[in-house]
Amino acid sequence: MKKISRSSPSKIVFLVMDGVGGLPHPETGKTELESARRPNLDRIARESLCGLTDPISPGITPGSAPGHLALFGYDPVRYEVGRGIVEALGIDLDLKPGDVAARGNFCTVDDKGIIIDRRAGRLSTERSAELCRLLSDMTVKGTGLSVVPVKEHRFALILRGEGLSPDLTDSDPQQAGLAPRKVQALSQQAQRTADIANEFITQANTRLRNESSADMVLLRGFSRRPAIPSIPEIYRLNPAAIAAYPMYRGLARLVGMKVLPTGDSIRDQVDTLRRHYDDHDFFFVHYKQTDSRGEDGDFLAKVRSIEELDSVVADMLRLDPDVLIVAGDHSTPATLAMHSWHPVPFMLRSRWCRHDDVPEFSEQACLAGGLGRLPATEIMPLAMANALKLDKFGA
Amino acid sequence: MKKISRSSPSKIVFLVMDGVGGLPHPETGKTELESARRPNLDRIARESLCGLTDPISPGITPGSAPGHLALFGYDPVRYEVGRGIVEALGIDLDLKPGDVAARGNFCTVDDKGIIIDRRAGRLSTERSAELCRLLSDMTVKGTGLSVVPVKEHRFALILRGEGLSPDLTDSDPQQAGLAPRKVQALSQQAQRTADIANEFITQANTRLRNESSADMVLLRGFSRRPAIPSIPEIYRLNPAAIAAYPMYRGLARLVGMKVLPTGDSIRDQVDTLRRHYDDHDFFFVHYKQTDSRGEDGDFLAKVRSIEELDSVVADMLRLDPDVLIVAGDHSTPATLAMHSWHPVPFMLRSRWCRHDDVPEFSEQACLAGGLGRLPATEIMPLAMANALKLDKFGA
Repeated sequence: MKKISRSSPSKIVFLVMDGVGGLPHPETGKTELESARRPNLDRIARESLCGLTDPISPGITPGSAPGHLALFGYDPVRYEVGRGIVEALGIDLDLKPGDVAARGNFCTVDDKGIIIDRRAGRLSTERSAELCRLLSDMTVKGTGLSVVPVKEHRFALILRGEGLSPDLTDSDPQQAGLAPRKVQALSQQAQRTADIANEFITQANTRLRNESSADMVLLRGFSRRPAIPSIPEIYRLNPAAIAAYPMYRGLARLVGMKVLPTGDSIRDQVDTLRRHYDDHDFFFVHYKQTDSRGEDGDFLAKVRSIEELDSVVADMLRLDPDVLIVAGDHSTPATLAMHSWHPVPFMLRSRWCRHDDVPEFSEQACLAGGLGRLPATEIMPLAMANALKLDKFGA
Repeated sequence: MKKISRSSPSKIVFLVMDGVGGLPHPETGKTELESARRPNLDRIARESLCGLTDPISPGITPGSAPGHLALFGYDPVRYEVGRGIVEALGIDLDLKPGDVAARGNFCTVDDKGIIIDRRAGRLSTERSAELCRLLSDMTVKGTGLSVVPVKEHRFALILRGEGLSPDLTDSDPQQAGLAPRKVQALSQQAQRTADIANEFITQANTRLRNESSADMVLLRGFSRRPAIPSIPEIYRLNPAAIAAYPMYRGLARLVGMKVLPTGDSIRDQVDTLRRHYDDHDFFFVHYKQTDSRGEDGDFLAKVRSIEELDSVVADMLRLDPDVLIVAGDHSTPATLAMHSWHPVPFMLRSRWCRHDDVPEFSEQACLAGGLGRLPATEIMPLAMANALKLDKFGA
């Protein structure tokens, strides 16, 4: 792609409806999308080339990070983003290439050191922030440590220094009734980092001894920011991200997008898009509600979130981008109340797409689309082609 | 394929309608194919297994060489055919494995040596041939050089000798207002070839000094014939090519086909097919007009070229080959007036194909075909299977 991509003034707007795909409601037989009033999405479908995307491969349920990496054109199996990094991205931390991040939990243990509750009763975010402050003025073997609160019992641990390695086992056994484990090095050069992590755990547990809310820390998902070629580098784009949730801003930053400040609602986001429309040639607009309401298992609320999105889509259409993409990073059927493996409705609207007969934006209709089923990683090449930003391959 | 292919008397006729895929006309909403009267192609569609092929991968627009290599079953990313080789193939030059070819332009420069016109005002083919003759009696460091006219300002430079390497940068900066660059070696063993190329440029420029039509030469796309296993070797076929344009004859020769002499019209080509029908078991018939008229941006002329082809297809059907394939190397929508990334209508007619309900040969209809979307590289295995020329794989 690097060889044939070229810069041009044409604009690509890439709207991601997080978790948009669904499953039929047992009573009506209709999915969330099929149940929603969505005149604008349906209008786009009629002017688009449609299909169903497989985020990773059939049957595989993606986390948010691989789901988005695939949308951005990266092989999500090759570019793995570890738990710790996802956690750090999720609180807008700007990680440096050598940093090692881990996800931390505050937990409670009995007097034999056996875990009673891996989440310390989901202690309040405020209380958790106090405990993080208690642990934050620590230096271990010359390595700087940051302990940053995330939400409830969750925090991120960042190690910053020379020669660190993420090749470590978890201390979190992921199950109550067991003792926390020692962190172990999975390679020779990770030994020093393992020692640092274990020393941090010991010191932290000492400091927590007199606290009532939690007794110990558990660490998992040691990882480093993947070395990933950036979107400006690969596609010669000048990309911007408009996302209300920190994690998606973090993922966008990871692939070299400029993150635009925006408000909490999708209306704010579309305002931001309009205001900055002249400054970039690629916009990633992330809509979170479809996923959140799906994970709540609230079918009706997910339907309403689709309708809310639909009402602002008209404003996006008024900008008339050269390529408008509506996609999802995965399905989140309300009936399952979690991410799922089901392929995701997709549409691409452009003057140069050979559009199909799909009359509406739904799982069933997109299946009969001109793209059929396609890997999500094929979206970026299609977006680039339809924006006339690709040279011919070969003579 | 090599392990399971077997020779047999059954016949495969592989008709390539170059650039056949299109886009809807803005007024009628119908593509070139859909606008054409095509009773014979439609008849084949009704007796065929149909689909839409992706020449390289979704979104990627192929040049003619990778487009055809994919049709012949080769991974077009693995077997790259450089600019220089394509140019040489295009004038029916028979290249040897060690030869290095480059594409040359005659250009004009100002008195500071800055390029004014990369094409020297598209000087006439006759004048260009005279200039080529002026440069053709040159030997540099013991290496033979051929300078062969192509068309207008274009020529092919062929270096023939021991130890040559194509790992060279272009001298052509691909832009007026810049000076030509020195050819540089991209690897150690290419240094001598770089010296030869630069010496050729210096001598050529000296000889051109007193000429009025052009001042200098520009070189690009140094390349060597790729080492490519041949079709007789892989498929145990005895293949023949019937093509009116030199470049396609060159590509056919590259993959080991016998090139049959033929006339300029598709009727001549079908006559050639009939005359040689007993001599081979595989025939590649190349129809160029669909692409040429598409590149002209002449919608109606492309429609007429499809109708012209349709009228001779009846004669091909009369031969009743065991497998008849109608495919394209890429799309060339008249509305874009260039090669494009859109998938290409495809059909395979054989006694043993499980045919589908596709009623006509068009983009829309083929999408609903039994093959759906498929990579073009899958055509050859399907052709072989339907000709009963493949053994079972595994016990």
